[in-house]
Amino acid sequence: MERANTILSGGTVVTMNQQFDIVRDGAVVISGNKITAVGERAAILSQYEADEIVDCSGQYILPGLVNAHTHVPMTLLRGLADDLRLDVWLMGYCMPTEREFVTPEFCQLGTGLACAEMIRSGITSFADMYYFEKDVAQATASAGMRGVLGETILKFPAPDAETYEHSLAYAVEFIKEWKGHPLITPALAPHAPYSTTQDMLRECVNVALEHDVPVLIHIAETKLEQDDSVAIHGQTVVPWVEETGLFKAKVLAAHCVHINQGEMRILREHKTTVAHCPTSNLKLAAGIAPVAQMLNERLTVGIGTDGPASNNDLDMIEEVRLAAILAKTAANDPTAVPARQALLMATRMGAKALFMDDVGSLESGKLADVITIDAGPVHNMPQFDRDPNAIYSRIVYASKSSDVRHVICNGDWLMRDRNLLTIDEAALLQAAAEYAVKVDGFLAVREKDILRKLLAIGGLEQGESFEVQVKAILKDEHDLENLLQHSDVEIVKSVHYRQYDTYFLFDDPAAGRVRYREDDMLDEQGNVKSVRSRLTYTTTTKERDFHSAVVLSRSRFISKADRPLRFYREYFQPHQERELQKDRRRWHILYQGVLFYVNLDRVIKPDLNEVFVEIKSRTWSLSDAENKADRIKRMLDFIGIGETQIIRMEYLEFHKMHS
Amino acid sequence: MERANTILSGGTVVTMNQQFDIVRDGAVVISGNKITAVGERAAILSQYEADEIVDCSGQYILPGLVNAHTHVPMTLLRGLADDLRLDVWLMGYCMPTEREFVTPEFCQLGTGLACAEMIRSGITSFADMYYFEKDVAQATASAGMRGVLGETILKFPAPDAETYEHSLAYAVEFIKEWKGHPLITPALAPHAPYSTTQDMLRECVNVALEHDVPVLIHIAETKLEQDDSVAIHGQTVVPWVEETGLFKAKVLAAHCVHINQGEMRILREHKTTVAHCPTSNLKLAAGIAPVAQMLNERLTVGIGTDGPASNNDLDMIEEVRLAAILAKTAANDPTAVPARQALLMATRMGAKALFMDDVGSLESGKLADVITIDAGPVHNMPQFDRDPNAIYSRIVYASKSSDVRHVICNGDWLMRDRNLLTIDEAALLQAAAEYAVKVDGFLAVREKDILRKLLAIGGLEQGESFEVQVKAILKDEHDLENLLQHSDVEIVKSVHYRQYDTYFLFDDPAAGRVRYREDDMLDEQGNVKSVRSRLTYTTTTKERDFHSAVVLSRSRFISKADRPLRFYREYFQPHQERELQKDRRRWHILYQGVLFYVNLDRVIKPDLNEVFVEIKSRTWSLSDAENKADRIKRMLDFIGIGETQIIRMEYLEFHKMHS
Repeated sequence: MERANTILSGGTVVTMNQQFDIVRDGAVVISGNKITAVGERAAILSQYEADEIVDCSGQYILPGLVNAHTHVPMTLLRGLADDLRLDVWLMGYCMPTEREFVTPEFCQLGTGLACAEMIRSGITSFADMYYFEKDVAQATASAGMRGVLGETILKFPAPDAETYEHSLAYAVEFIKEWKGHPLITPALAPHAPYSTTQDMLRECVNVALEHDVPVLIHIAETKLEQDDSVAIHGQTVVPWVEETGLFKAKVLAAHCVHINQGEMRILREHKTTVAHCPTSNLKLAAGIAPVAQMLNERLTVGIGTDGPASNNDLDMIEEVRLAAILAKTAANDPTAVPARQALLMATRMGAKALFMDDVGSLESGKLADVITIDAGPVHNMPQFDRDPNAIYSRIVYASKSSDVRHVICNGDWLMRDRNLLTIDEAALLQAAAEYAVKVDGFLAVREKDILRKLLAIGGLEQGESFEVQVKAILKDEHDLENLLQHSDVEIVKSVHYRQYDTYFLFDDPAAGRVRYREDDMLDEQGNVKSVRSRLTYTTTTKERDFHSAVVLSRSRFISKADRPLRFYREYFQPHQERELQKDRRRWHILYQGVLFYVNLDRVIKPDLNEVFVEIKSRTWSLSDAENKADRIKRMLDFIGIGETQIIRMEYLEFHKMHS
Repeated sequence: MERANTILSGGTVVTMNQQFDIVRDGAVVISGNKITAVGERAAILSQYEADEIVDCSGQYILPGLVNAHTHVPMTLLRGLADDLRLDVWLMGYCMPTEREFVTPEFCQLGTGLACAEMIRSGITSFADMYYFEKDVAQATASAGMRGVLGETILKFPAPDAETYEHSLAYAVEFIKEWKGHPLITPALAPHAPYSTTQDMLRECVNVALEHDVPVLIHIAETKLEQDDSVAIHGQTVVPWVEETGLFKAKVLAAHCVHINQGEMRILREHKTTVAHCPTSNLKLAAGIAPVAQMLNERLTVGIGTDGPASNNDLDMIEEVRLAAILAKTAANDPTAVPARQALLMATRMGAKALFMDDVGSLESGKLADVITIDAGPVHNMPQFDRDPNAIYSRIVYASKSSDVRHVICNGDWLMRDRNLLTIDEAALLQAAAEYAVKVDGFLAVREKDILRKLLAIGGLEQGESFEVQVKAILKDEHDLENLLQHSDVEIVKSVHYRQYDTYFLFDDPAAGRVRYREDDMLDEQGNVKSVRSRLTYTTTTKERDFHSAVVLSRSRFISKADRPLRFYREYFQPHQERELQKDRRRWHILYQGVLFYVNLDRVIKPDLNEVFVEIKSRTWSLSDAENKADRIKRMLDFIGIGETQIIRMEYLEFHKMHS
C-alpha cells in the first residue's frame, strides 16, 4: 500500500483533464501539496492508505476555480455607489474614497474578506490588480490561496505612489520579495493603455522580462477606449500596445470587450491571454465580449469576477454561468460556449490564462487545488445521466456557490463542510463594518450636498486631474511675443474669450466649490462669435512645488450649464459667492514638440490692474512633470519673468491679498 | 394593546410601497392572512401583542418575490439536454419526453419540487404555463404558494389533450373548479401566436372574459417568430394578436424580446403586462429584451425565471440581478434599470403584471407574503448607509438565494430558518430520482444513436408534426384530372420530381429511421432542372383514423445532406437498408380555399406496377382535422376512389405485402 495524506473518496470526479475524464464513484489522492492519483474509488482504496479518507459521496470533486481578473481589496468598496456612469462612479466615489482610505491595512482587510468570499465560492486561484500588493500578497498567502498579484502602474497619482516611477520601484521590490513563493506570483499591472503611456509600457515589459513575471492589464474594456485610441493614436488599442513590445511578456489582458479579429490574432500570436468579465461588462454597460470568436481564434480565455465594486460579488459559479449564457446571445447561437467549455475557462484554461500549468485539472502530479460541490440540492435535481455533458450542465447552469462544501489549495484545507479554516471571518466582518462607518461619514460630508446635486441635474465629464502649471504677473503684455514668436515654438491654435465666472463657496472647504462660467468667444474685431456656459466642480487640490512650476492633482467635473445662474444659486445654496470677469487670450503651443496651453488674462472684475500669464500642461509622471517644469522655466525666461513675478494663488485670493 | 398572530421584529423593512419607505429597526405585523401594520419596532411593540414575535435583526424584511413566468413541472426536465438549438431541444428532447412522461403525477411531482426551490429563493407567487394545471394547482396550494396557473392551448397534440378543443374544455373545467381559491388563480395559456391560430385566440379571449381570468402567452420570444409573422401574415406579432381581440382580456405576455415601440404602445393601451426572462433569453440565444424602453413606455414588466429546462433553475434573486445588469448593456447606459427598479419588477410591479393588486409590497391591508434575507454574509459586506439606494443595490447585486431565511405566504409560514414547512423535500427528491432513471432509459434507447448523430453533422429543421392524409391506388391516372380541373379547385403550384430514397432502418423500431433522399426536379421535357439531397429523421408515428383519412402526428427532422450516401451509411451503421425510387408529380391546390398537397406517385423501384395518389394537409385541431378529412373524402369522390382503394401503409410495406 502506498501512503498519502488525504483521499477524497466517493463522489463524481470531474477531472477537466485533456480527455475530460469523469470518474463516477471516484477518488482523488493528495500527498503533500500534490495530487498523486485520480481513479475509481475501489481501485484507489486498494492501492493507497491515507491519514484521512474523506467521504465525498453525493458531491462533485473538481479542480479549484480560477478567478482570472479581480481587485480584491475593493470588497471594502462593495455597494458604495451603483447604477452610475463609469466616470462618475470612478471619479465621484471610487477614487476619492481610495485616495482617502487605501492603506496597507485597507488592502490586508479587503483581501482577507475577498479570500473568505472566494473560498466559499470554490475559488483557489485569482489574478489581482490593485495597490499595496505586498499587503495583498500577505493576506492571500495567509488565507492559503494562490494569487497572481499585479502592482498597479498608472500615469496618475495612486494611493500607494505619487507617480508611476514610485509604483515601478515598489513593484520591483514586491517582485524581489515574493518571487518563488509557493502560492504567490508577483506581477506588474500597468492599469490600461489609456491610463499609461507607451514609455511606461516599455519600462513595464523590461521589468517583466528581466524578472520573468506576468503583466496584467485592462484592454479595450469600452468602445470609447477604442474610439479614443483611433482618434488619438490613429490605431486601435491592441496594435498600439503591441508597438511598445509589451506582448513580449506573459500578458493577461482583462475585458477585451471591443477587440476585432485582427486584434485577436495579434494577441494569439503573442500568446497573450484574456480574462473575460461578463457581470462587470454588463453592469457598467461596457458591452458583450465576443468570447465564442476568441475561442475560435484559439485564444486562451479565463473568466473573472472583476472587483466587488463593479460586480458586486466574487461568485465564480455565477460568473461561469453568465459567461456561458451570454456568449450564446452574443454569437446568436445557443450552442456557443457550452457548459463544459465555460467550466474549462474557469479551471484548466483559466489557469493557463494566469500562466500556471500545474493547476486547473485533477491529474496525478498537479498541485492539489481541489473543491467539492454538493450534487443533490433541490435546485439541481433530478439528475439525468444519458448525456455525458449533463454533469457540466448541472454544475454550470444550476449549481450555486452555496453548494460548495470543501476547498483544498496546495494540499491544505481552506474550507471543510463550509467552515473556513484559515480566515477569522467574524473578525474581518467586524473590522469592515467599522471601516464602512468612516467611509460613509467621509463621503457624506464631502459630496452629498454638491456632487450629488450636480449629478442629479445632468451629465458630468471628467476633467484633467494631474497637471503642471505656473501663473505670473506680466509686466508688459508684448513680452509674451518673445515666447509666441520663438523659433522653438509652434502655435497650434489661438482663441479669445471673455469669461464671466461665479464661484459658489461652501462653509466646509473640504466640500469643494462650484464654478459657473459663461465663455463668450470673440472674433478678431472683439465681437461675440459664440457663447457657452459650464459648471465645474472642483474638490480639494493637492499641490507639489517643482522649480518655478506647481504640480496640481485634483478631481474636476465639468457639466454643461443649460439653466440660468439664478437656478444654480437656488439649487446649490452656496454659503458665499464670488464673481470674476476676465478677458482671456489662449494659445495651444508646441514647445520643442511638447503641448502647452498659454493664457493671457486681464482680470476686469474685480479690477486687478495687472496682466497675467498662465502656462500649463497635463502630465503623467514625476519625470514628465519635472521635464515640463524645466521647459516652463525656460519659457518664462523667454518672456523675462523672474521668481518674484510668479504667484501661487488664484485670482480671487490675489485680489483679497491686494485690496 | 391590539392582538396579532405574528410580529416580524427588528431588521430593516424594505416596504416596496409607493414611497419606497425603508424602516430601519422596523417590524411587520401579521394577523390572519394579512399585514395589519408596518412601522418602527418600538412603536409597533408598544401597540401590538402577538402569539409570536420573531426576531429578524440582521435581516432585510421584504415582500415575497413574484416569478412572472415559468413552467414549474419542467423541474423534472432540468438539465435533460442543454446547449442545443431551440427546435432541436424542443423537438428532439423536450417534446418526445413530455409526450411519453407528462401525466398528472408528473405535474404534481414537478410542481412540488419547483415550489421547494422557489420558496428557498424567496418566491411566494408565480405565473405558470403547462399541462394538467389542475394538478399543478393542487401541488401549489398544498405547498402554500400563490399561483396564476395557465392551462396550455396549442394547435398540436399535447400531453393532456389530443387537440386544442380538449385543452379548452379542460381549461374551462379547471377554471370552474379553482376560481375563487385563496391562493390559486386559474388562467388560460394559449402557447404562442405561432403555435395557435387566430380562431383559437378568439375562443380563448371569450372564455377569459366570460370567467374573468387572465391569459398567459409567449410573445415575440425570437426574431424568427417576428420574421415569420411578417412573412406569413404581413404584420408583426403584436398587431396580429391584437386583431383577434385577445388583449381585451387581462394578458400577461412572456418574453417580448423583439417588440418595437409601436408594439409596446399597443400592449400599453390594452394594459397588457410583460414577463421578462433574461436568463432563458440569453441561454437560448433569443436576444435581449428592451426592458428599459418598455419601462419608459410605462409598461408593467415583471421578471420570470422561465422553466427550469431552459434556465436551469428557479432562482429569482439571480434573475433580478441579471435583469438589472443586462438592461444596462442593452440600453448602453449603466444607469438604466437601477437596483430599486429591478426589485420593484420582482415585487409590486411583478404582482401587478400578474394582475394581483393585494400583494407585492409590505403595507397594512395587503396579503401577508413576506420574506427575510440575511443582510450580513461575507459576500455582502461591508454595508454603506450614505446612499438610500444602497439597500436595493445590496439585495439585487450581492444577495444570493441561499441568504433567504424566512418565507411567509398568505400569513402561513412556508420556510423558517431555511427549513421547509409545507413540503417533504426528501420524498420529492427520491421520486424525482426514480423518474430520472426512466427518462434516461427512454431517451437512450430512442435517440442516442440516431438523433445525436444527425445533430452532430449539421443543422436540423423541424418538419410538420400533425397532418391529415390519405393514400390510394389510382386505377386510371387520368381520373386525377377530375380533381385538378374541378371548379372548386385552384392549382397554386405544380412540380415534378424523380425521388431516390434510401431508408436506414434500425433493430429497435422505437429508434425511428433515417431517410436519405435525392430529389431530381424535372422540367416539362423530363430533363433534370435541379438536384437536392436531404436527410429526414422520423420517429414513431401516432395515427388516428378519421373517415377515409388518417391524422398523423410525428416528429420529423430535416437536414440538408451535403455528403455522399456512403458517408451516411458508414456514419449511421443501419441494421437494414431499403431503397425506393419514384416519379412524383405534386400539386399545391386550394380546395374551397383550403390548402392541400396532392402527390401522383409512380414507384419505379421496387416496381409496384401501380399509380398512387396522396392527398394531405397540415392541421391544428380536432375540428379542423375532421373538416379536412371530410374535404379529402369529397376530393376522393371526384377522382372516383372508394374505400377499397385506400391503403394505410407506406410503399415499402405495400411492396412487402404484395411481393
